Amino acid sequence: MCDLLKQGERLEEIGFGGLKLIQNPEWFCFGIDAVLLADFTELKKDSRVADLGTGTGIIPLILSRKVQVNQIVGIEIQEKVAEMAKRSVRLNGLEGIIEIVNLDVKDAVSSSEKSTFDVVVSNPPYMGKESGLKNEDSSKAIARHEISAGLEDFIRAAYDLLKDKGSFFLIHRPHRLVDILTLCRTYRLEPKKIRFVHPNKDSKPNIMLLQCIKHGGAELKFMDPLYIYEKMGVYTAEILKMYGK
Amino acid sequence: MCDLLKQGERLEEIGFGGLKLIQNPEWFCFGIDAVLLADFTELKKDSRVADLGTGTGIIPLILSRKVQVNQIVGIEIQEKVAEMAKRSVRLNGLEGIIEIVNLDVKDAVSSSEKSTFDVVVSNPPYMGKESGLKNEDSSKAIARHEISAGLEDFIRAAYDLLKDKGSFFLIHRPHRLVDILTLCRTYRLEPKKIRFVHPNKDSKPNIMLLQCIKHGGAELKFMDPLYIYEKMGVYTAEILKMYGK
Repeated sequence: MCDLLKQGERLEEIGFGGLKLIQNPEWFCFGIDAVLLADFTELKKDSRVADLGTGTGIIPLILSRKVQVNQIVGIEIQEKVAEMAKRSVRLNGLEGIIEIVNLDVKDAVSSSEKSTFDVVVSNPPYMGKESGLKNEDSSKAIARHEISAGLEDFIRAAYDLLKDKGSFFLIHRPHRLVDILTLCRTYRLEPKKIRFVHPNKDSKPNIMLLQCIKHGGAELKFMDPLYIYEKMGVYTAEILKMYGK
Repeated sequence: MCDLLKQGERLEEIGFGGLKLIQNPEWFCFGIDAVLLADFTELKKDSRVADLGTGTGIIPLILSRKVQVNQIVGIEIQEKVAEMAKRSVRLNGLEGIIEIVNLDVKDAVSSSEKSTFDVVVSNPPYMGKESGLKNEDSSKAIARHEISAGLEDFIRAAYDLLKDKGSFFLIHRPHRLVDILTLCRTYRLEPKKIRFVHPNKDSKPNIMLLQCIKHGGAELKFMDPLYIYEKMGVYTAEILKMYGK
């Protein structure tokens, strides 16, 4: 275990068929967003998948349990975070499936990788560079704020990586809806399916899930709303099912 | 009454403080959309308001009961429908407030009208020209399909008619969300507030309400979802309140 965990890190059993994850609470810990995005993502057998801004590697790990994919490449700009994610992959014996790459999403597309992915997923930073930012250098700030890369960089990278008719699955905040839909259409990732996630049935949505198809035709389908809590502190059946409970 | 009603027409008391409305069931009758849009529309005292594609004049009539406005201009392309709406206005003694104009929205902006409205509202045709269209000449088809004018024409007219920082309130269908948001932003009507309307708490939205502000800054606010039915055939309290019940 000494090789696997560094100071300040924590090893957790996170479910999803016995997955283990290394996290550093000082940087960030995975939340429900990763679970929602993994659930929303549709994967066919033998797909090649990229995760832009993979952080702890949580999304590739959960996706690897959904269906037998060919490969999942997790791209993470922060060297120490990428290194930690690599150890989580080894810990789960998934080196044959998941590759963690320490790279800026803006540099994600080498000529050999262009248009080679069936699916791209992303849980990018939600907050603008200016909103309530205290320390630009912290790992938490880079994961949450658009410091290193903005929404447009993630969308451009998704377009470049995807095959024709490949799918981009994105989780974000509803207040960015106009930016997201206009940028996706500009980059010819046509929004095809949208799902709003509400804390409960009486509240407005605070999370959005979007599927775009590269070069797809214009027609957006709405999914039924997803509610997180049945009542205070009690998850809905749908959320419990996502966690495998 | 002989002067007021023509063959095939029907006079109804529709509530909202004793409003009367002439409708021709062969053309179309007003539905819940008009009530939702009128409720969503925010009006200040002495505003000047335009309704693009006013049909029976139902929206100007309901809006005239909300607050003491300066003037509401209802623009309707179909001559016989505009003429019927004028009779409804007279019947309610609202000639001093509501003016019905028989005009294509594409021709709505004369030089004297440009940038003179505080608020523009619209319940435009929802359906594309091609979708399930049987008879292009019928009044019903023109009201429901984008035959005479498309979404872009309504949005352009709203931009041209509004004063700087004026509000555009639109009701439409969620499957057109991407088109609506991208066109509004293109025409510098920035989407500021959105509300999705669901048949009930377990269903996806089938109506959307959007407020845009001319030359507004980018930041979209979501409102709590609006549900139509509490259970089968029973309106929610919020809907009953809109109907003044």
